[in-house]
Amino acid sequence: MDDFKVPSGEIESRIKRLQIKMQDAGMDAMLIVQRVDLFYFTGTAQNGYLYVPAQGDPRLFIRKYMPRAQKESSIREILKIRSMREIPGRIMDYYGRLPGSLGLEFDVLPVSDFNFYQTVFKVERYLDGSPLIHETRMIKSPWEIEQMERTAMISGKTFEYMKTAISPGLTEMEFAGMFETYARRLGHGGYLRARNFQAKAYNWHILSGKNGSMVGFIDAPASGVGTSAAFPCGGGNKPLNVDEPIMIDLGTVLNGYHMDETRMYAMGRMPDRAMKACRASIEIHDTVLENVKPGVSVSELFNISVSKAKSLGYKEQYLGPEGYKVSFIGHGIGLELVEHPIIARDRDYRLEPGMTFSLEPKMVFENEFSAGIESVFVVTETGHRMISKVPADIFVC
Amino acid sequence: MDDFKVPSGEIESRIKRLQIKMQDAGMDAMLIVQRVDLFYFTGTAQNGYLYVPAQGDPRLFIRKYMPRAQKESSIREILKIRSMREIPGRIMDYYGRLPGSLGLEFDVLPVSDFNFYQTVFKVERYLDGSPLIHETRMIKSPWEIEQMERTAMISGKTFEYMKTAISPGLTEMEFAGMFETYARRLGHGGYLRARNFQAKAYNWHILSGKNGSMVGFIDAPASGVGTSAAFPCGGGNKPLNVDEPIMIDLGTVLNGYHMDETRMYAMGRMPDRAMKACRASIEIHDTVLENVKPGVSVSELFNISVSKAKSLGYKEQYLGPEGYKVSFIGHGIGLELVEHPIIARDRDYRLEPGMTFSLEPKMVFENEFSAGIESVFVVTETGHRMISKVPADIFVC
Repeated sequence: MDDFKVPSGEIESRIKRLQIKMQDAGMDAMLIVQRVDLFYFTGTAQNGYLYVPAQGDPRLFIRKYMPRAQKESSIREILKIRSMREIPGRIMDYYGRLPGSLGLEFDVLPVSDFNFYQTVFKVERYLDGSPLIHETRMIKSPWEIEQMERTAMISGKTFEYMKTAISPGLTEMEFAGMFETYARRLGHGGYLRARNFQAKAYNWHILSGKNGSMVGFIDAPASGVGTSAAFPCGGGNKPLNVDEPIMIDLGTVLNGYHMDETRMYAMGRMPDRAMKACRASIEIHDTVLENVKPGVSVSELFNISVSKAKSLGYKEQYLGPEGYKVSFIGHGIGLELVEHPIIARDRDYRLEPGMTFSLEPKMVFENEFSAGIESVFVVTETGHRMISKVPADIFVC
Repeated sequence: MDDFKVPSGEIESRIKRLQIKMQDAGMDAMLIVQRVDLFYFTGTAQNGYLYVPAQGDPRLFIRKYMPRAQKESSIREILKIRSMREIPGRIMDYYGRLPGSLGLEFDVLPVSDFNFYQTVFKVERYLDGSPLIHETRMIKSPWEIEQMERTAMISGKTFEYMKTAISPGLTEMEFAGMFETYARRLGHGGYLRARNFQAKAYNWHILSGKNGSMVGFIDAPASGVGTSAAFPCGGGNKPLNVDEPIMIDLGTVLNGYHMDETRMYAMGRMPDRAMKACRASIEIHDTVLENVKPGVSVSELFNISVSKAKSLGYKEQYLGPEGYKVSFIGHGIGLELVEHPIIARDRDYRLEPGMTFSLEPKMVFENEFSAGIESVFVVTETGHRMISKVPADIFVC
């Protein structure tokens, strides 16, 4: 893993694509600081700021740690600074002037940071640069898809491992610790990236039995009980039992690229009602995939899935109980667990080749169980290709 | 764990203390949304907004999930809403008017959220409410300290477990997975809370041997190599070896309350140079503790530690290599891993009874190893009391 480096061609093409969007939007320059965005556009996640003019070469300002940034990043101009206050002067030196409009990552930058930035950069207009970043990041290159496929290998093996390691009496949290340890042995990096300041990404979204049907604060069909009121989602201290439906939603990451997949497990036997629901979820999943091709809108995919769920008799349970249904069936995925676009009811994005999605048609049977599946695919020129390596199956161990 | 509930007396006194600070600051009301703050002031972390007027009863608006919020929170007025847009109307109904000034959590609220809030709340002035929240949270009640002591029990047992489980050939990441699984069996919740949008908190800050001396982007004496350029801190894929210094910085959490402690391990023998440095760190640690009492300023503690390090001959290595030294030796801790105040060179906070701190005098021997210790204590009326249960020792296994 130590020889991993983002190729210079990747970095160049990413910045070029961003610059075209900036020119179209009339944005003179962008200052990128969020760790994942910085890694995407430079190859390094060290403490620093990337200045991208709408035209011309970018400059990477590094506060800490310069030797590592130089080793990891193929950006030609990397400059050491002690404080952000030095940046405007450096920009004047190199570009001859400050930009009229400066794009910042408004979707993550806290108000107090922005207030400070405004004392440092005296520009006419500050614009929200985050939509342009998301639109650049949402089209993955073949190199990026290759990275995701490497992560999918780890994830696939980890689902296999679960079959042998799952055992009655293990708590949800403990079992998650076990399979996460296994995944780490294969290179899993542990930390799942969530962009939104209120969102949490974690490795233990295990929803077993009745507890697994509990609705909660997260934007998912079911949240789970969690470990306490302080972290009321995902797995908890409930032991896993025989003959109950167990949903395992596994996030893995290698070299920054995520996978997000769900499979159903049961020890002993899967109750009939749950088995039927699991199979129906797989049918919905497959029906959506059959309709994936460039030009199709995400809302169309959403609607196809809802129709299919109805026709299979799962209108009531699909996407959550009445009153708490979610309005999406999937989301972009890459350097963050959830990326743009979202496959949602009200969105009008059209599929393009290179978009990667996690597709998760799930059902909640209140006070009984959750059921569903989740796989990752990439949109190709003519349809789709699975990135997930784990079979679209139900595992009864 | 399922019967855990924040007592109503806690909630009442927290809100009262906040209201006094609001009155002093001339802030008419505050709207609290960040998950941890919301949990602190209400007892629930469900999706919602807490409206606190400078005087009178607060109102908790819940989007999702109402039954759980009602069960967890002792706030008397809990109201279900579908959208934030309903809040101003409800405030008019209850309080007769909108506030003139509204405090928000500027240190975490992204600019785009704030822009949206401004279309919803038409008030005269928006103020930064986060300093008042931090100052309320930094004084822990006896009940809160009891919670931290329960977490310390888990943490102490986990350090004991490490002695038996550590083994040559395990990678840093794998070993971390093992002890985290053990901790989860005792109730550890897995997710460590970091407030800053650029900060990451994780469970695998293992720095072994030479790799463990690597400086990096995080605000710590050493960052470690991490698993890749995408996550360049903490443990990595390096196997643990005999006869090398291994620093294990363990974060644990129970019912939202964190512990953050560091101990040094070695298999076989600890090299002399490292052993001496570890002992010196413990001496510095103890010297700082001897000087802890109400009224002492945090910068005084910082300076005492630097003098002590110099007198022991560790000027060069203390707090990081020259050019990369950090300017703090500890930090508040509670519902977040790092809270106010920070025990730093330039801060003028004075210690008060009920403040809880993680104290971490660490050293970096570049291209050799990291050494140090970290424990958690609470400031009492006359001095301090340790919350950490694990002995201030060096573990050679």
